[in-house]
Amino acid sequence: MQTLDRNPSLIAALQTRRTKLAALVNVPVLLWSGSSSPRNFRANTFPFRASSHFLYFAGLPLENAAICLDSGKLVLFMDEASPGSALWHGESPTRDEIAAAIGAYDAYPLAELDSQSEMATIAVQDATTRSHQARVLKRAIASADDSQGFDLALAQAIVSLRTTHDDFALAELRKAATVSIAAHKAGMAATPYARTEAAVRAAMESVIIANNMTCAYTSIVTVHGEVLHNNQYHHPMQPGDLLLADVGAEAASGWASDITRTWAVAGKFSPAQRAIYDVVLAAHDACIAAIRPGVEYRELHLLAARTIAAGLVDLGILRGQVDNLVEQDAHALFFPHGVGHLLGLDVHDMEDLGDLAGYETGRVRSDRFGLNYLRLDRPLQTGMVVTIEPGFYQVPAILQDLERRSRYQAVVDWDRLAQFADVRGIRIEDDVLVTATGSEVLTAALPTKAEAIEQLVQS
Amino acid sequence: MQTLDRNPSLIAALQTRRTKLAALVNVPVLLWSGSSSPRNFRANTFPFRASSHFLYFAGLPLENAAICLDSGKLVLFMDEASPGSALWHGESPTRDEIAAAIGAYDAYPLAELDSQSEMATIAVQDATTRSHQARVLKRAIASADDSQGFDLALAQAIVSLRTTHDDFALAELRKAATVSIAAHKAGMAATPYARTEAAVRAAMESVIIANNMTCAYTSIVTVHGEVLHNNQYHHPMQPGDLLLADVGAEAASGWASDITRTWAVAGKFSPAQRAIYDVVLAAHDACIAAIRPGVEYRELHLLAARTIAAGLVDLGILRGQVDNLVEQDAHALFFPHGVGHLLGLDVHDMEDLGDLAGYETGRVRSDRFGLNYLRLDRPLQTGMVVTIEPGFYQVPAILQDLERRSRYQAVVDWDRLAQFADVRGIRIEDDVLVTATGSEVLTAALPTKAEAIEQLVQS
Ligand SMILES: [Mn+2]
Ligand SMILES: [Mn+2]
Repeated sequence: MQTLDRNPSLIAALQTRRTKLAALVNVPVLLWSGSSSPRNFRANTFPFRASSHFLYFAGLPLENAAICLDSGKLVLFMDEASPGSALWHGESPTRDEIAAAIGAYDAYPLAELDSQSEMATIAVQDATTRSHQARVLKRAIASADDSQGFDLALAQAIVSLRTTHDDFALAELRKAATVSIAAHKAGMAATPYARTEAAVRAAMESVIIANNMTCAYTSIVTVHGEVLHNNQYHHPMQPGDLLLADVGAEAASGWASDITRTWAVAGKFSPAQRAIYDVVLAAHDACIAAIRPGVEYRELHLLAARTIAAGLVDLGILRGQVDNLVEQDAHALFFPHGVGHLLGLDVHDMEDLGDLAGYETGRVRSDRFGLNYLRLDRPLQTGMVVTIEPGFYQVPAILQDLERRSRYQAVVDWDRLAQFADVRGIRIEDDVLVTATGSEVLTAALPTKAEAIEQLVQS
Repeated sequence: MQTLDRNPSLIAALQTRRTKLAALVNVPVLLWSGSSSPRNFRANTFPFRASSHFLYFAGLPLENAAICLDSGKLVLFMDEASPGSALWHGESPTRDEIAAAIGAYDAYPLAELDSQSEMATIAVQDATTRSHQARVLKRAIASADDSQGFDLALAQAIVSLRTTHDDFALAELRKAATVSIAAHKAGMAATPYARTEAAVRAAMESVIIANNMTCAYTSIVTVHGEVLHNNQYHHPMQPGDLLLADVGAEAASGWASDITRTWAVAGKFSPAQRAIYDVVLAAHDACIAAIRPGVEYRELHLLAARTIAAGLVDLGILRGQVDNLVEQDAHALFFPHGVGHLLGLDVHDMEDLGDLAGYETGRVRSDRFGLNYLRLDRPLQTGMVVTIEPGFYQVPAILQDLERRSRYQAVVDWDRLAQFADVRGIRIEDDVLVTATGSEVLTAALPTKAEAIEQLVQS
C-alpha cells in the first residue's frame, strides 16, 4: 500500500455503499480481501489483488484483512505489520490509521474475528483465505458462483449495487481508461519499429507500468486475432498483417478498463481489411448509438449481429436476408462471441459470481451458437458501464468444421471469402457509460475510424 | 505454450537429469506442474508458472500436467485440449506431440494417473493441484519445506542435482542474464527523462516483455533502497537521489536472472554516495575474486562484511578493528542481509524446500544478527550459480533502534554518518558461475564501476 491520504470523498462514497448494502441484507456480512498467491515459492508471490467485493466496501487493497459490515457500519480486522517487517517493507501505517482512512467504525486484530451468529460471505479466489473463511464462519464456503441461502442473498444485493457506478467509481474508471488510451497510442506508434508482437506489447504495457497501474487482464497483442484468447507474443509481424491489441489498465484502486483496437502492421489497411474493418466499426457505432436506459443489452448484441451480417451481405461474403441470416446464426461464423460485458472492479465485472451479475434474474444462457457466449443479458440502467466489442474473425475451428460448412453452404460465398484471407481477426472495443439521456464513451479519446488509426500508426 | 520444436539437445539434457535422479531415489517419483492461480475471477488468472521441479525434468511449462519418473523413464499425464478450446486458444499440440518433444516414454490422460505403490512427490504451490496430489497419492502432502520420509529423500536428491547446472541450464541462464542486462541499461538511459520510479521500472520491464520473457520476481526500482523489499514505485525522483533497481528476467524455460544496480538520478554520484558506492563495490569485487570450488559461501559473506566494515572505518563511520567489528555484527547495522543465494529455475533457487538447498546437511541458520539472513551456507562447487550482492543501507528500523544505538554507541561515529545522509541504500548484485578454476560472472556485460554507470545514465 502506498499512501494513506485521508480522502473525505472516498470515505463518503464508501459509507453510501455500506448504507445501501444494509438496506438490502438483514444479516451481518463478512468479506475478506484475500492473500497473495505464491508463484514458484512462498516468498515469490504474484502481485496481490484484493477481492473486488472487499475493495468495493473497504476502498483499499489491504492484504489479509476482513471487514464486518453490519447496519451500515464497517469493522476492520487485520494484523499490524510485524516488528521485523519494517526492515524489509518499511514503515507501515498502523491498523488505526488504516481504519481512519477508510472510515471504519472500529478495528481489531484478525484473531478477534469470530462469528457469533449467522453471517453472510462471498468466497475469495485464494484457497488459503477460503479455508480461513470456513474456519471463522464454522461452515463450508461454496465457491462464489455457487452460493446458497444468505450468501446468495448477499451476492444478489452486491450485484444490485455494483451494477451501476457512483461518482467515485466513475472517476477511477476514467483514470484507467485514460491510461489504456495512452497505451494503445504507444502500441500504434511503436509498430513501425517493432518486429514481434512482444515488442508492441512491451510498448503498451510500459505505459501502464509507468503510470503505476497494472494490467486488468492478460494482454492480447497478436497478428492472429482469430485466436480469441491469444496470449502468445512471439510471432514476427509481417507487413500485410493486422495486429489486434486487447489491453486494459487497472487503477491502483482496482477499477478496470478494457480496450481493443486493430491496426495494420504496415500502417495502411489493405482494401479487404478496410472493408471488413468498416463493417465491424459500423456494428460498434450502431450499438453505441442505441445505448440508453431500458434498452436490452441482448438487443445490442443482435443489432451488432445484424449490422455485421448486412455488411457481409454487401461484401458478397454472406447471401440472403439479414434477419434470416441472424436467426440461423450465420453471423456467428465470423462473430462467435458476445458483444460485450459489464465493466467495473473486474474486467468482466462480478464474473466470480457466475451469471448472477450478467443475467437478469430468471434469464439463462441460450443454447444458440450465436448467443451462447453473451455475457450480459439485462436492460441497461443509468450508471452501468458496458463494453461494446463487435468483431470479425476467420477461426479455422469454425470455418473448417465440416458440419458447419455443410449447414451454411448456401449462405456463405466461400470463393468470395477467400479474397479476404488477410483478415484473420478484427475487434473494436470501447467502454461505455449508460447515461440518463444515452451514453458516454469513456474511451472516446482513442480514435476508431480507420484513417485516424492509420495516422497513429504512421506518425 | 508457443512452439514445439523437437530439440534433441534439450531431450538429451532432460534424459541425463532423469537418469541421475534414478540413481539417487529408489521409489517412483510423481511431480506435478501446477495450475494457474485466479486473480479476481476464475477466468482471469495470473500468468501460469510451472513448478520448477517439474520444469527441471519435463522441460516445458505444461499446465495441469504430471510426470512419473521411474528408472530414468518419464511418463507424461495430461489431458488433450478440449474440442471447444481451439476457438479461444487456437490449435494445441496433441499429448503425443508434447510427449515426443520432451522425450517421454509414454503419455496418458490425467485420469489414468493413479499410484499403485508408494511414490515420492514434492508439493506444488497452488492449493488446487496440492489436493490433486493428495487424492492421487492417497495421503496428506506436507508443504515442500516440511517433507518427510521418501518425499524428503526425493527433495534431497533433487537438491543435489539442481545445485549445479548442466550446459542446457547454463545456456538458458545466460539468455535471461542478457535480457536483464539490456533492461538495466534501458533503466539507466531512461532515468534523465523519468519523473517517477514507475517510469524507470516501465523502461526496464519493457525490455523483458519485448524479449518475451517475464520478471523472475517483483521488481524493486526505488529511491528508497533502505526498504529492502520495496515494491512501491510512486515516489518522484529528486536530483540528489540514488535509484536502486533489482530487476531480473526469467526465460520462457523458467531459468532466472537477478541483477541489482544503483545509480544517481542526476547521473553523477555525490562525493558521499561515491565513497559508499566504492565500499560496496570493493566487497562485491572481493567476493567474486574469492570464488572457486571448495570455498565456503559463508566465508564470502564474512569477506563482504569485513570489506564493508574496513571501508566504513576508512570513511570514519565505524571505529575499531575490522575483525572485531564483524564479530560484533557492527557491519550488519548497514548490511543486514546475506551476500546472496543460489540462482537457477528460481531466483532463490529451491527456496520452496526451505533451507534444504541453501544449507549443507547438518547446518542451520545462525541466531547472529549478522548471519541470520544468510540464505546459502555450503561449499561452492563447479557449476553452481550464486548471486553476489553486498549492500549498504541506512534502515531507520535498525539505526533508530534505541537498544542497537546504545550497544553500538562506541563503534559508530553518528556525526560522521550524518554526512552520508544522501546514501539511503546501495546494492550491487551479479550472477556468478563457479568454474573449475574460479568463476565467470554471467552478468559481467553490465558495468559495475561508478564512472561506467554514470556514463550509461547520462548517455
Ligand atoms: Mn472486453
Ligand atoms: Mn538476489
